[in-house]
This record gives sequence, structure tokens and C-alpha cells, in this order.
Amino acid sequence: MANPLRMRLRSFASSSASALKWEGGVSLVQGASRGIGLEFVKQLLEKNEKGHVIATCRNPNGATGLLELKNQFSERLNILPLDLTVESTIEESAKSITERYGSLNLLINASGILSIPGVLQPETTLNKVEKSSLMLTYEVNAIGPILVIKHMWPLLKAGGGFGTERDVAVVANLSARVGSIGDNRLGGWHSYRSSKTALNQLTKTISVEFARKKDPIACILLHPGTVDTDLSKPFQRNVPADKLFTKEFSVQKLLNIINNTKLQDNGKFFAWDGQEIPW
Amino acid sequence: MANPLRMRLRSFASSSASALKWEGGVSLVQGASRGIGLEFVKQLLEKNEKGHVIATCRNPNGATGLLELKNQFSERLNILPLDLTVESTIEESAKSITERYGSLNLLINASGILSIPGVLQPETTLNKVEKSSLMLTYEVNAIGPILVIKHMWPLLKAGGGFGTERDVAVVANLSARVGSIGDNRLGGWHSYRSSKTALNQLTKTISVEFARKKDPIACILLHPGTVDTDLSKPFQRNVPADKLFTKEFSVQKLLNIINNTKLQDNGKFFAWDGQEIPW
Ligand SMILES: NC(=O)c1ccc[n+]([C@@H]2O[C@H](COP(=O)([O-])OP(=O)(O)OC[C@H]3O[C@@H](n4cnc5c(N)ncnc54)[C@H](OP(=O)(O)O)[C@@H]3O)[C@@H](O)[C@H]2O)c1
Ligand SMILES: NC(=O)c1ccc[n+]([C@@H]2O[C@H](COP(=O)([O-])OP(=O)(O)OC[C@H]3O[C@@H](n4cnc5c(N)ncnc54)[C@H](OP(=O)(O)O)[C@@H]3O)[C@@H](O)[C@H]2O)c1
Repeated sequence: MANPLRMRLRSFASSSASALKWEGGVSLVQGASRGIGLEFVKQLLEKNEKGHVIATCRNPNGATGLLELKNQFSERLNILPLDLTVESTIEESAKSITERYGSLNLLINASGILSIPGVLQPETTLNKVEKSSLMLTYEVNAIGPILVIKHMWPLLKAGGGFGTERDVAVVANLSARVGSIGDNRLGGWHSYRSSKTALNQLTKTISVEFARKKDPIACILLHPGTVDTDLSKPFQRNVPADKLFTKEFSVQKLLNIINNTKLQDNGKFFAWDGQEIPW
Repeated sequence: MANPLRMRLRSFASSSASALKWEGGVSLVQGASRGIGLEFVKQLLEKNEKGHVIATCRNPNGATGLLELKNQFSERLNILPLDLTVESTIEESAKSITERYGSLNLLINASGILSIPGVLQPETTLNKVEKSSLMLTYEVNAIGPILVIKHMWPLLKAGGGFGTERDVAVVANLSARVGSIGDNRLGGWHSYRSSKTALNQLTKTISVEFARKKDPIACILLHPGTVDTDLSKPFQRNVPADKLFTKEFSVQKLLNIINNTKLQDNGKFFAWDGQEIPW
């Protein structure tokens, strides 16, 4: 009996010859200069010797971690400038990826802000909630990743799971457990929390449209655990040692989830250990 | 045996003599020029013949519905200018309420935007998602109400339930069922949905702080049903007649929920019929 998913995927394949060229797949990691994003780029290149990776960041010339990887993996790594707050840089990236690759199998939105010295401080009380902090955090954490998906959508549709071991393309947005409303017992961090909650709702909304249009794309939300990066550094004091993950460990777990994502996972929110997180 | 809640409330009473002056209570309805907000003002004045109501709106001179009520209820209704996007107008309102009343027992954030001709259109697809629409909707629907709570907090703390039949002051934020992530089956309306989801998370976050500080305030989120107002007008075509409520009916139901709110309802999200809505 004909399998409708397979048939659908086959029709995508024929409509998108370029997708077949990229055995090993084409992945885009957005927010790749440091931290979890940079580690995703590294493991994607190391673990899949045929895979191609596009890494975007605000300032490629200053992204020393990426430049080191470029030395090592030259042809398979492509670094592009992208600032989430400047939509034209997202459009330019999409154009450049369209010309060079024609398809994408994976988009990881790894960027995110929690604190910026002198600019943004996570709120400890309602009295410290400022409009400017909320607006900036929403712009970077909620709106930016969605604009990236908007502009990469045709590429993901063209790519689906071709060249990979999956049936579908995956969009993985880095959220956070503190974005869960149901799980909010401590309060505080108003801007960061609610930006991730908005990201969760936007991702869910997009997943509904992808499903209705039968696009070969699954959107998921990921909580990486508390990971030892610049983002968590100022807040690690009260984290027990065994609850503070290395980026290597967290990204290994998250890649495992991504590689096993099926169409029915579309719209779900997973922690690093594969458990679903309540909204 | 001493009841700790009562004792706490008594200590508030003595620290806030002004709260005792306002038998019948003092309510603030923010976003009161039209629709559900205006109807709240009307029913609060009609149903409680000793209650005082402060109604805020962007343009008091053009708020004909409020001006009619002012003719009828003169002393008990106070109209103040407040534009959610201009924080100084929120601060001015708080100052003016502090001077005249010294306390608040109820704050209803009734404002909200879904569509504005020529400016804002609810999105039917990801392709139509624009940064400007997301930012504007977040500013009005999520951030504005929270800034109002921030500036009215001392007044609500001073007021608690005094002069009313409740034990606590109530903050009621008008949210919407479409803000629920768990209940999102249709997709679309990216800006509006995610703005209400952010409002839900911000309200929950605030409720945690109020609880920890043992403030005599309960914050709740309300879904009014689909109500026949300017906001829903362009989208009523597919709403069955018995699912389209009059503002009179919806506000009667919502006031019933508000009047019965207890401290343990703090942080909850209720539909017009009293049922809790999943996050
Ligand atoms: N670390 C944790 O414990 C933890 C826990 C839960 C969730 N998360 C989430 O995981 C993701 C990665 O966090 P991380 O720990 O790796 O953070 P990180 O080390 O601070 O890295 C943040 C990344 O975001 C990028 N970024 C910031 N603003 C940007 C913009 N306007 N445009 C493009 N990129 C921008 C940064 O680029 P620049 O180098 O240009 O600044 C950097 O690459 C974030 O979404 C975070 O919220 C982290
Ligand atoms: N009607 C429904 O079916 C429905 C369903 C679910 C949830 N809700 C929610 O219920 C609430 C009331 O909706 P409604 O149906 O009464 O809407 P409405 O008739 O369109 O009234 C909206 C109100 O918000 C005010 N407003 C807009 N922008 C503002 C700003 N920047 N500063 C201050 N006030 C501003 C408007 O004032 P101006 O007159 O100055 O524009 C008006 O008073 C909203 O939060 C809405 O999202 C409604």
C-alpha cells in the first residue's frame, strides 16, 4: 500500500533536484559565535563527515571559535553574517543559502540574551521591570528566530529529510524551562521568561501551519539544561555541580533529540533528556 | 486561634488609614473608552452604589460612552488619560489616584489590540508575520498592562480587600483563549496569540512575587468569550450566534469571577464560565 508520507516526500524530491546533491544534509546554526550554537556547529561537522553547515553570527570576523573550525573543515563550513535585529541580514543569508545550497534540512536557532552588562539585567522584582528590557528581549529571543524561519521556510520545504537519516527537516528553537508558565514557581526574570514563552507560542503557531500544509518540516523547542556558557555564568552560584552541564554534554543530548525527530514531534517542547515540558 | 490572613489584613488596615475611607471600594478600569472596558465601568457603578471607579483611556474628550456615565454618576466616576505606550501617563495616573484615593481594591486591564486598519492585521500565515506588528502588539497587549500593575502596586497593597466583600485586592488582566499554547489548534494570529501568551507568563511571574511577599493581592487572567465589540467585529462571520456574547453578558460573568476571587486563585487563568484554561 502506498505510504502517503513517502509519496509526499518523493514529490518534494522531484520538485527539488538540488536537495539531492547534498548527501549528508545541509544544516544552518543561527547564533553560532559562542556557547551552545558554536558547539552545535562543531558536533555537526565532526559527527557527520559529509554534512554541510552554515553558521551565522553578528560579527564573523570576531568569531574566533568559528574561524578555527573553518580552518579545520573549510569546504563544509560556511560562515555568514546575521544580526537578528536587522531583518535585511536574515534575507541576505537566505538569498546566499538559496544560491549556494538550494535547500536546508536543519535550522537551529541557538541565539538568545538574558543579561548584557550595562544594558540588560534579569529582573528580581516587578519594580525593576522596564519597557526597554522587555522590548529588546522580545526582539532578540522571540521575534528574531521567527523571522529566520519565515525566510528559510522555502529552503526547509525543499530540503525535507533528504540527505539525512530523518524523514523531515527540523527547526529547533532554543527555548528554556523558565519559559514554561506551568512550571514557574520562582518568579523573576520577567523579560527572559516571557520572551521564551512568546517564542514557544510562535513556534507552536508555525507548527500548526506546517502540519496543515503537509510541509516535510517538524518544529521543536529545546531546553538545553543549565549549561556552562557566558549566558549562565553570572547565575551559576546556586546551581549544584551535577546540574551544570558542559556544552559538549548538552549539545550531544540535543542532537540526539533532533536526529530522532519525527513528523509527530512537530510543535513539541523537549528538555535535554527528551522529557516534554509543560507550557 | 489567630487567622494569619486576617492578622495580615488588619496590619494593612492600620498602616493604610485611607483604605478605610472608601466603603464600597475603589476600582480602576484601564482601557475603558469602549467595548468590554466601558461595560466594566458601567456595571461596577450600577451594581455597587457606594463603589468608586477610575476609568482610564487614551483620549477622555472623545470617550463618549464614559462621558455619558460621568453625567449619571458624577462623583463616583473619575476619568483619567492613560496611553499604555507612554509610561509617563501611567505614572501620572498612579500619582493622581494616590493623591485622591490612596488605595485601590481592583485593577482591570481591559485594553487590547488585534487589528488596526492600515496598521495591524492578524496574520493568516507565517509569510505575513512582520516585526513591526509583533512589536506593536507586544507593547500594547503584554508590556503595557504590566507597567500599569507596576505603578499601581503600592495602591493595591494599601487597598487589599477593604471596603469590598473580598479578602484581597484583585488584578484582572484580559487575556484570550487563543493565547493558550496547549489549546492552539488553528494557528494564525501570531502577534495577538503570542502577545497574550507573554501577558499570561508575565502575570504568572508577578503573582509569584505577590504571593511570596504575602501581599493581599490576587492576579488573575480572564478570557471573556467571543464578545460583540469593535475588536471581534471583523472576525464574527464564522462565530455561531449562541457563541457570540453581548458585552453585558460577558462582563456580568467576569465580574462574578472577580468578586469571588480568593488568594488561592492568584496566578490562574479563567474563562468567562469559571473554567480554568490550560497554558
Ligand atoms: N546556557 C544555559 O544555561 C541556557 C539555559 C536555557 C536556555 N538557554 C538558551 O540556549 C541558547 C544558547 O545560549 P548560550 O548559553 O549558548 O548563550 P551565549 O553563550 O550567551 O550565546 C548567545 C549567542 O546568541 C548570539 N546573539 C545574541 N544577540 C544576537 C543577535 N541580535 N543576533 C544574532 N545573534 C545574537 C550571541 O552572539 P554574539 O557573540 O554576537 O553576542 C551568541 O552567539 C539561548 O537561546 C539561551 O536562551 C541557555
Ligand atoms: N471581544 C472579544 O471577543 C475578545 C475575546 C478575547 C479577548 N478579548 C480581550 O478583551 C479585552 C477588551 O477587548 P474589547 O473587545 O473590549 O476591545 P475593543 O472594543 O477594541 O476595545 C479595546 C480598548 O483598548 C484600548 N486601547 C487600545 N490601545 C490602547 C493604548 N495604547 N492605551 C490604552 N488603551 C488602549 C482602546 O482604546 P481606544 O478607544 O483609545 O482605541 C479600547 O478602549 C482586550 O484585551 C481583548 O484582547 C476580547
